This record gives sequence, structure tokens and C-alpha cells, in this order.
Amino acid sequence: MLIVQKFGGTSVGDLERIQNVANRVAETKKAGNDVVVVVSAMSGETNKLVGYAEHFSDNPARAEMDMLLSSGERVTAALLSIALQEMGFDAEAMTGRKAGIVTDKHHTKARIEEINPKTMKSALDKGKIIVVAGFQGVNTNGDVTTLGRGGSDLSAVAIAGALKADLCEIYTDVTGIFTTDPRIEPKAKKLERISYDEMLELASLGAKVLQNRSVELAKKLNVNLVTRSSFSDEEGTLITKEENIMEKPLVSGIALDRNQARISLMGVKDRPGIASDIFNALADAEVNVDMIIQNKAVDDTTNIDFTVPVGDLHDAKMVVDTFVKNGEVKDDSYNEDICKVSVVGVGMKSHAGVAALAFSTMAKENININMISTSEIKVSMVIDEKYAELAVRSLHNAYELDK
Amino acid sequence: MLIVQKFGGTSVGDLERIQNVANRVAETKKAGNDVVVVVSAMSGETNKLVGYAEHFSDNPARAEMDMLLSSGERVTAALLSIALQEMGFDAEAMTGRKAGIVTDKHHTKARIEEINPKTMKSALDKGKIIVVAGFQGVNTNGDVTTLGRGGSDLSAVAIAGALKADLCEIYTDVTGIFTTDPRIEPKAKKLERISYDEMLELASLGAKVLQNRSVELAKKLNVNLVTRSSFSDEEGTLITKEENIMEKPLVSGIALDRNQARISLMGVKDRPGIASDIFNALADAEVNVDMIIQNKAVDDTTNIDFTVPVGDLHDAKMVVDTFVKNGEVKDDSYNEDICKVSVVGVGMKSHAGVAALAFSTMAKENININMISTSEIKVSMVIDEKYAELAVRSLHNAYELDK
Repeated sequence: MLIVQKFGGTSVGDLERIQNVANRVAETKKAGNDVVVVVSAMSGETNKLVGYAEHFSDNPARAEMDMLLSSGERVTAALLSIALQEMGFDAEAMTGRKAGIVTDKHHTKARIEEINPKTMKSALDKGKIIVVAGFQGVNTNGDVTTLGRGGSDLSAVAIAGALKADLCEIYTDVTGIFTTDPRIEPKAKKLERISYDEMLELASLGAKVLQNRSVELAKKLNVNLVTRSSFSDEEGTLITKEENIMEKPLVSGIALDRNQARISLMGVKDRPGIASDIFNALADAEVNVDMIIQNKAVDDTTNIDFTVPVGDLHDAKMVVDTFVKNGEVKDDSYNEDICKVSVVGVGMKSHAGVAALAFSTMAKENININMISTSEIKVSMVIDEKYAELAVRSLHNAYELDK
Repeated sequence: MLIVQKFGGTSVGDLERIQNVANRVAETKKAGNDVVVVVSAMSGETNKLVGYAEHFSDNPARAEMDMLLSSGERVTAALLSIALQEMGFDAEAMTGRKAGIVTDKHHTKARIEEINPKTMKSALDKGKIIVVAGFQGVNTNGDVTTLGRGGSDLSAVAIAGALKADLCEIYTDVTGIFTTDPRIEPKAKKLERISYDEMLELASLGAKVLQNRSVELAKKLNVNLVTRSSFSDEEGTLITKEENIMEKPLVSGIALDRNQARISLMGVKDRPGIASDIFNALADAEVNVDMIIQNKAVDDTTNIDFTVPVGDLHDAKMVVDTFVKNGEVKDDSYNEDICKVSVVGVGMKSHAGVAALAFSTMAKENININMISTSEIKVSMVIDEKYAELAVRSLHNAYELDK
């Protein structure tokens, strides 16, 4: 097998841990696999360098930031390659440039445009272990670029896609994706397999494990992703296409997003295009609107409720205030004490009654559902935040996810 | 004027010092000059990275070391560029690669083969201040290389040569080149100008200021070098070609080299080719032989004395022992308690009596001269180490270097 293994900052956080990573890579190689390793900067290094830059400027030039920040991953890649060579392996450290990673020109948040795997392929043909500095590429001007937060995961997925690797293992400090947050429901179980789409819906569960950008790229390139821990030998969770999941569970997991706020607009003038005007204005302000409910009021106005991430609330208020001021909205109110609970599963597509069980579970616990939205593989409910843990545990139990 | 300014590790040792460097570069630019800055890694960084590598291996691969070590200069270059931009200047940080520095393939001690100044020239044409990461280049395979100790000085001199810069200023923590070591002779004076050849001969004086490799390259490329301090506004010392020095002093300085050992071979078999055999064997062992004296002994043998750097003494002994064992040398002895005092000056070429004054000065102080060697611009004497300071002060006084 050809396996791409990616180790994040905490996994290479000090010299002992880099040696541990070398040992794990060595085992994979000795088991008869070809291995490409992708590494992040040692934890703390990137923040240190950002701090240095901020000493000089609140808004440092992005090209300079890329030259600065790309150095951390180069250090780790060189050190890991040296460690592997000392253990008797033929290893070679490569910068993003040498690995053939070409990006667009958006410094500090570049997108990978293509990977030219010629150099990597020829090194693999010679039996080498390749150690690639993650998070970085080179644009068509020949300048170093970086890929933004989670960039090393993207490097690994893109490389796995370009080399048609059998597996892309993402090592972090958690052992995989769980049916729900084990801190809320200790009976949560680690999932063996999950589809890309479910993973994307569960993102709020696994936000710290994998960013959606990486999962989306894996889906696009058809890369089998595994998330697992670099601190244990436990098997992780395979994220793959739906066809690869033989026994499709009705529901895979319960996700909780506390990071939501609800905005209520009362007495909205009932003229054609008013909703369009409001939500276009919000979009222009880059406010991320999630759920929307519109109710006809008793008079000739309507009420509109919608949710936004807490971080966007300030900008949303600014937009809404302009409509209150010009009289098209009579009044507005805000509620940050809400959360969104979601039931996610590909099995829903072919089974009726999944949503109904969610609603009846809430009813049984006397939890009021404020808003509902559904997709093919997800039922989301907005509820008061004080019921968050109760709702997650009840749903986890109702769908028998601990079995 | 086009000025290349090079700042070493202590000059960019922390963020405050990088800001000081930015201020100095800004002044040079504001005075109407074009400026290319070459920077080293922040002091301590390179040693830290070497320590990391040595944690994993006593003999880390050189290509990996270059990827590792080249990161430090990139960090400094990016930070200095950010600082200059914040001050309102149009600055651009460049890696060795972007600056067009092409080297041979000897990782960790590469030689600059050529500089393609196209990118730098076009940036200068736009009025930009260029900040180049020193110490590094790229070989014809496209891999990063480093230039070895003193590599950032070499980068600066080579860039100054390629751009036909008017000046190449090397900033360190000393104010220039002195007539002798001021710790030995407090009356030592800073030289305003000195020729390349004198500088090369005085290297033992100025070893910490400039490596011979850089002076030799400056001579070859006809680069006007200035060494000065980044911590004061004092003018430094200009190192230039002899023709540029109008008033040629008879003697420019007194150099002292304590790092010498004397090897005496007694009863050397007087056969043709014996000296050649011995010194070829020493050359094969990479022992750096300096002065040689051969005396006919009373019997049919000769005595040969020579000096080597103390660091080569062990290897030299190994070689000499083989000749003692095979009977071609009767006996050998070693003396590390010697030093070499040199009187250096281009004016010597056209003036007789310079050497005679050196010898009579030694005689006046009752200092025995063990060995003598001379060149066009230098008289060197090996004496007992205990007289080192006395000899330096007497010669400094005799040639009126404090005037």
C-alpha cells in the first residue's frame, strides 16, 4: 500500500515526539508500505513567528508572512528525515516546492491548484520515505505560499490524491470521530467508518479533528481519510465514500453547536422583496445565516427569525439596525442562549421516521424546539442552550448509538 | 549610490535590534541610495537548529541540514522587510533562490557559482529596498544549499559584485580593522583604508571581523568592502584595491597568531626527496604547514623545523611518527608555546629596511627569533609565546602606528 501520514503540531511538538513519529513511520515502512509523511511546524513555532511579525506591524505583508511561516514546517521535515536516516531508512525531506505543490497567488491562504508528483514518484520508486513540509506550496511566480489554518491536512490530502495513495492518515491527539462528544455522553462510541457527507455535517463535533476544507478535498479527490491518534495504537475512523460503507447505520452521530445566536425581527413590512433585501444585506456584510423561519403576523406584517454564528452577531446587528431605522422592521431581539442539535446519518435517505423520532424524543424530555431544518442526511433543531446536554444524551440513547 | 548592507547574527539578535537595523537601512535609503540588505539568522538560532539535528544523529545528511539551517535567515529577512514596510518603505524579502544565487552541489559548504541579478535589478528599478536571506543559495537541481561559516558575508559580497554596487558594508559588533589588537596595545588605531592583500595577511587580527573567503571574493569581484559596527555611527574601515589607497603607509598593522605549533625533526636521513616525502604525506593528511626551515646537521643528516596550526598538530604527529618508525627521522619534538608576529604593509614593496627594523626591535627587547618568513607585503617571525604582547607593542611603537 501507499500511505500518506500527516502529523500535526502537537504530534511533533518536541524532539522526543519527533522520534516517536519516526518510529511510527518506520513501522509502517517495515510492514511493506510506501510512505509519504507530511508534517506541521512544532507546536508553538507558528504562533511565535506570528508574534514576531506582529511586533513590527498590525498588518504585515502577506508575501513576507509566507516566507516567515513556511520556515517552521521545513525545520520539522528536515529533523524527521534526519531521524529516519539515522534509523537506517532512505529518507528525503522535501519542501512544498520540491514536492510539486503549486498554488494560486493568495498569500497566507492559497489554494492548491495542482500537484506535480514527478519528483515524489521518482523518490518512491527508489524506495525512499518522503518527508514533506506541509502547509506550503509555491505559486506560478515561484514564490512560497501558505495554505492557511489546517493547511498541512490539505497538503496531505492533495498529495494522497495526486499519488493515488491507498490511505491518508491524519494523526492528531484524539483517536477518531465519535457518535457524539464523549465529554457530554460518556457512552459515545468511536465510529469505524463514516461518509464524507456525514463528516461534513458532523464538523461541529469533529471541528478540532478535521476542517471541512480537507474533507471536501478528500471527497473531491476520492481519498480515503483516516483520523487517528499519534499517542496510541488504536485504530482510527475511516472517512470514505458512501459506497465503501457496507452496513449503513440509520444515524451515525449527534452533533452539538453551541456557537449559534438567534435574531428575531418583529413587524417586518410585508412588501415583495423585503426578505431578499435583508438577507442580501447580511450576505454583503459576510454574515453567515444558517436557519430562517418566516411567520405571518396577525396584522399586515411578518416576523422573521434566523440564526447566525455568535461571531457574526455584531455585524448582523449593524445590518438589521438599518432596517429598523428606516421603518421596514418594527423591532428586533437577539438570543445567544440557544444551541443547535443535529442528528446525522446517510441511512436517513432511505428510511422514513428518523426525524419523527427526534421530535418525539424532545417532546418526551419537555424540550421546546424553536426552529427545525432538515437535509437528506441531517435533522437540525434549535433549542434553549440549557437543554443542550440533555438533548444530546436523549437522542444518543433514542437512536441506540451506544449499541 | 547602490549600497549592499550585511547584518550578522548579533546585529539582528532580537526584535529590538532588527528594528535598529531597519532604522539604519531607512536612513541609508532616505539619503538617496539604493539599498540591498543581506541578513543572517538571529544569533543563537543556527546553533539551536544544529543542536536539534545532533539530537537525532552525529552525522546528519547535508541536504537535510541545508533545508534546516536555511530557515533562520528567511525568518530574519521576512521580519526586517515587514519592519521596513511598516515604516512606509517599499521593501521586499527574498530567499537566496529568488535573489538568483546559484551554487554548486556541495551541501552545507556550497560555493557560489553565479548570481542571476534579474529579479533584484527589476525590484531596484521599482525603488524597492531588497532584503535577502544570506548564507543560502540553490543548486542546479533546485535544492537549497548553504555556504558554510561566514556564508552571509559571502552572499553580500557576491551580490555587491553582481549588481556592481558602489559599497558593500559588513556590519558587526566591532568598529573596523585596527593597526593591532587593541586588547594588547590600547594605542592601536582604526585603519581608514586597507588593501585586500593586507587584509588577508592581517586575517589573524581580523578573523572575527571577516573571513578570508569573503575578502578573496571581494578582491576577485573588485567590491569595495567596509567593515563597521551596527551599534555606533562611527565610520568603519574600507577594504579596497591598492590603487584606491592614495597615501600608502609603510606598515599597516601588526598581526599576532597564537594558534601555532612548531614541530622539529632531528636527524633526518639526507637522501634526495626526503623533504618532499614528508611534506607530501602532511599535505595528504590535510595538515596546513606554514613556515619551514632546514639546517644541515654535523653528521650526514639534516634537521627540519616547521609550524602548523595547533588544531592540525595531532594529525601532523601521526604522519611524523611513521617516518620516525621507519628510521628516516631519528627524533622529533613539539612546541606549542610559540606564536607568530607579523608586520604587514603594502608600502614594504617599495621600501627597503622594513624587515631590518623588525629584527632590530626584537633584538632590542632581547626576544629570540626562531623562524622568519617574508612575502612582498609581510614579515613574519616565530617567537616564544611569552613574548607575544611585548613583541606586538614594541613593533607597533617602532613603526609609529599610533601616530
